[in-house]
Amino acid sequence: MLTYNRYVELINDALHSFPYPAQPRGLYEPISYAIDCGGKRLRPVLALSVCESLGAEASTAINQAVGIEMYHNFTLLHDDVMDRAEVRRGRPAVHVKYGEASAILSGDAMLTLAGITMGKGCTETLLPRVLHLFNTTAMEVYEGQQYDMDFESRMDVTIDEYLDMIRLKTSVLLGCACKLGAIMAGADEDVCDAFYRYGEKLGMAFQLRDDLLDTYGDPATFGKEIGGDICNDKKTWLLITALSEDTTGEVKREITAPSDKTQKIANVKKVYDRLNLPERCSLLIDCYISEAIDALERTGISEKDKEFFTSLAHKSTTRVS
Amino acid sequence: MLTYNRYVELINDALHSFPYPAQPRGLYEPISYAIDCGGKRLRPVLALSVCESLGAEASTAINQAVGIEMYHNFTLLHDDVMDRAEVRRGRPAVHVKYGEASAILSGDAMLTLAGITMGKGCTETLLPRVLHLFNTTAMEVYEGQQYDMDFESRMDVTIDEYLDMIRLKTSVLLGCACKLGAIMAGADEDVCDAFYRYGEKLGMAFQLRDDLLDTYGDPATFGKEIGGDICNDKKTWLLITALSEDTTGEVKREITAPSDKTQKIANVKKVYDRLNLPERCSLLIDCYISEAIDALERTGISEKDKEFFTSLAHKSTTRVS
Repeated sequence: MLTYNRYVELINDALHSFPYPAQPRGLYEPISYAIDCGGKRLRPVLALSVCESLGAEASTAINQAVGIEMYHNFTLLHDDVMDRAEVRRGRPAVHVKYGEASAILSGDAMLTLAGITMGKGCTETLLPRVLHLFNTTAMEVYEGQQYDMDFESRMDVTIDEYLDMIRLKTSVLLGCACKLGAIMAGADEDVCDAFYRYGEKLGMAFQLRDDLLDTYGDPATFGKEIGGDICNDKKTWLLITALSEDTTGEVKREITAPSDKTQKIANVKKVYDRLNLPERCSLLIDCYISEAIDALERTGISEKDKEFFTSLAHKSTTRVS
Repeated sequence: MLTYNRYVELINDALHSFPYPAQPRGLYEPISYAIDCGGKRLRPVLALSVCESLGAEASTAINQAVGIEMYHNFTLLHDDVMDRAEVRRGRPAVHVKYGEASAILSGDAMLTLAGITMGKGCTETLLPRVLHLFNTTAMEVYEGQQYDMDFESRMDVTIDEYLDMIRLKTSVLLGCACKLGAIMAGADEDVCDAFYRYGEKLGMAFQLRDDLLDTYGDPATFGKEIGGDICNDKKTWLLITALSEDTTGEVKREITAPSDKTQKIANVKKVYDRLNLPERCSLLIDCYISEAIDALERTGISEKDKEFFTSLAHKSTTRVS
């Protein structure tokens, strides 16, 4: 198997040589701007590395890897329009740079391009399986995004609802990426499902750690301002747990009648600390990492290749300071 | 073959029993609102009627018919967000009723659902053909929409550019609908292509007549306010031709320094009349109708069934007062 960075190079090469038509520029330029974002390429790396760990060449799954990265960047593009987020990875968001109409239309085209690319290189037998997986996953991602929006106006979100939301919004796409790599390698259904489970659990760990970092990350390395979720009353595992356990009513008060920004972050954080939430959240993350690594046992891949995926699990989820 | 209205009933039945999940309501309710719009269902009627004219049961193409109607309504939904159009077929547009974020997300889900539905009931051999046609068409529709937006800020749009834009934005989807019906009926490629050509030419006639009606329609039956295109300087066949032929500079003046609304419509219309544009546009429409009807000659369908499609061509395009 290759290194993570070598897989990223393969993917970036494929993305850079993506056969966009030259015209109309207004449609295709925002797409290549959105794709050329310097992201971690986690999903396509999963597709390629899973494929190779099962004995096929990584390139067997290159179209599916590119397709899933195209889909992922489409969701980011439209999410930024919906959230009116102005910055994405340190650059103006697509709708800021090209206008909202172009962002919507180019996003639509990315979704169709993702489907086109997904089907490339598939035999007639594989095509229905690949497309069924991709389409089912895409619907789940929209459902997750909808639940996330629904939670904004709710104070009674449960932990189970939250975990199901992040499973839909984030995890299933990682599961899908892994399973696509396995399908393209010609693996049996139970091996495909084991890799799906690995990706799904990895995604849960990843998202929970992201939430934890938003409050407890190192300002020097986190990239965004610390405390954004608290300021926006974002219904994360931390806030939902605090709302249900904090008998002083402090957290609820900060939502209904907030102090100034800095004070609000400090007050809510104090409750989190009193309830030992950073530690408890880290334990939950460790559980998901364990489940991800356990799933590898049923993939039949070599111990050496397992190391790639275990180290990936630890790397993706140990960025807290 | 059935009557047009009977095909509409088949399609509406299928659309009403579409298997939306119950949750999250915020995602699926806007979709069923958008679909339940009382449209003419021209595209799915074409798919079903073409399929039946070729000796297969209409129901053979019902999923492709539903898929293409889902796609069409997705484009209307996102177009309304992009154009900030508040009303669609006499009701509040989806983004007005459910908010912009929901409109974008539900539209995305409609596009994925269209792709899912499109593939249903296909054999392994037909699936790649159906999806290739659908995906290629979808990309063309986005390109057409982009050119339409590009034309807003241009004064030098040529008639050829305009005709290619409406071909992409409108006609190819009608061609696609016809060809889907033919593919599902198991027709040979040249028969499929003849029906594609019929739909494509029908679409050209349809769009040109729509533009003509916007200026010359009967206010009692047109549904929208007469003269909207003139007010918005929309680059239609009429305006583009007038801009290139009007030596007085009157039309250009009304774009750069417009009179009040009523006066502007009257002034521009006077130029159109002087240049005999309504008559010349009608002649162009008749040419496309002829080409559509000619294409039927290579489909091999019975003379009786041809009548359905010729009368449809005349009906769709003779609404001018």
